[in-house]
Amino acid sequence: MKIDTLTIVGVGLIGGSIGLAAKQRGLARRVLGVGRQQASLDRALACGAVDEVFLNHLEAVPKAEVAVFCTPVDLIAEQVLSAVPACKSDILVTDAGSTKAEIVKSLQGRLPPHVHFVGSHPLAGSEKRGPEHADGNLFEGKTAVVTKTNETNDLALNRTVEFWRSLGSEVMVMDPETHDRALALTSHLPHLVASALVSILTPRCSGLTASGFRDTTRIAAGDPSMWTGILVQNRESLLAGLDRLDASLAQFRHALETSDRPTLNHLLAQAKRIRDALDRPSQGAHDALGN
Amino acid sequence: MKIDTLTIVGVGLIGGSIGLAAKQRGLARRVLGVGRQQASLDRALACGAVDEVFLNHLEAVPKAEVAVFCTPVDLIAEQVLSAVPACKSDILVTDAGSTKAEIVKSLQGRLPPHVHFVGSHPLAGSEKRGPEHADGNLFEGKTAVVTKTNETNDLALNRTVEFWRSLGSEVMVMDPETHDRALALTSHLPHLVASALVSILTPRCSGLTASGFRDTTRIAAGDPSMWTGILVQNRESLLAGLDRLDASLAQFRHALETSDRPTLNHLLAQAKRIRDALDRPSQGAHDALGN
Repeated sequence: MKIDTLTIVGVGLIGGSIGLAAKQRGLARRVLGVGRQQASLDRALACGAVDEVFLNHLEAVPKAEVAVFCTPVDLIAEQVLSAVPACKSDILVTDAGSTKAEIVKSLQGRLPPHVHFVGSHPLAGSEKRGPEHADGNLFEGKTAVVTKTNETNDLALNRTVEFWRSLGSEVMVMDPETHDRALALTSHLPHLVASALVSILTPRCSGLTASGFRDTTRIAAGDPSMWTGILVQNRESLLAGLDRLDASLAQFRHALETSDRPTLNHLLAQAKRIRDALDRPSQGAHDALGN
Repeated sequence: MKIDTLTIVGVGLIGGSIGLAAKQRGLARRVLGVGRQQASLDRALACGAVDEVFLNHLEAVPKAEVAVFCTPVDLIAEQVLSAVPACKSDILVTDAGSTKAEIVKSLQGRLPPHVHFVGSHPLAGSEKRGPEHADGNLFEGKTAVVTKTNETNDLALNRTVEFWRSLGSEVMVMDPETHDRALALTSHLPHLVASALVSILTPRCSGLTASGFRDTTRIAAGDPSMWTGILVQNRESLLAGLDRLDASLAQFRHALETSDRPTLNHLLAQAKRIRDALDRPSQGAHDALGN
């Protein structure tokens, strides 16, 4: 794959890393970056993530063969829709949003035939923000989900898969709803729980936190407004996940209330088995999904 | 502080690290290690954490001026009581257990006058086990709690504080109940929640876990039987912590059910503020506790 002009809308940690990776790996001849703040765009230019910057996506998207939207999930569909009338023919539009069903649904049947949208979600990132934390190897060996529905154009799907592979990702293709149900349990619920664990800390005990607490709650330092959008977009799966968590916590609570050591030990051992398996190389993404 | 013979009962990650640190820093002339399995003791000898090894603590504790029990929390009090009749006069006995109230209470008024017990808990460690993971710098800059009650001997308290400081720790002195209430929120509840989050993972979605999930649930890989003991010993504070967590999760749930973005954003922003403060150097252990 070789792109002449790649436009990245939203050059934060993810957008900046896409720019760096695309340039370092020779995927794009030039990278255009779009942002709301000149200061942030200047930092993206300074670290070499983009070649030219724009404050308005309506200027930069029409110049591209491929456009990636790395903006907050509740803005993506609207921004894509506003940009498409001026787009080049056969432009490939994708995104990096942490939710997929609502974005894909919002665009389905609303794009002109010369514009192809395929949803994406690279499972990479951190609680840090801004292009100054961009890393050209951020996607190396990480999973990127690419979504497929009955309406997805096959050629566009293949190009999107190739796009993420060119950045170093291992690509998994699935429907948007499957993605959202899984991410509710693996990302969105953990974020909510980490935030709740931090919230109940009393000032007196914050001095008694060790590395375990810091690791467990690291993700609670993520950007609140970005995460508000994610949690609300995936609220149905997230509420179902909360139900499951409540049921699991109730099992622990009952074992504690009755000082039932065998049950407590069993619950902890079961969790350890699953957690240990996540770190085993054999338990790769594809194995776990039975592919 | 200079110890001729230091006995460590239980030479796993913590016990092994105490041995290594004590020898590297010249705190003890010789270190005796006690364990149940010869293979584990051989590994402790091989990595230099101990000089001599014993399968029975009743042999090794009487040789020591200072003995540290690094065994599971539900064994410590019993092991100390069995060893004291043969102990040297003015021996200092301490421990490294993650709970303090029950251990201290079990020993109060039951030790002969020539034996001094002071409870300790170094806030260091990892989900790894065994002396082969021992690290002589494990305690460097980390908090160690030393407990004080109305019955604590002042000299023994000071020696215990000096002991942990000699290993590199920053020491905080508090009563056992304050320790247990704080650790319920900063360590025991996070462990239980990490285990619950892992337990509800479906096989299909384990391939969609990224670094956030792995960090959040890392502690769930801890030893189940060790953690069963900790959770049961601190069950009252832990159940109170579970109540607080349930209330916090209910706030998130309500905001999600009503798609109440401002409240959700407020809850996430509040958590981020507290979490960010934990990483600021100014928010040291002593500042946070108003010392």
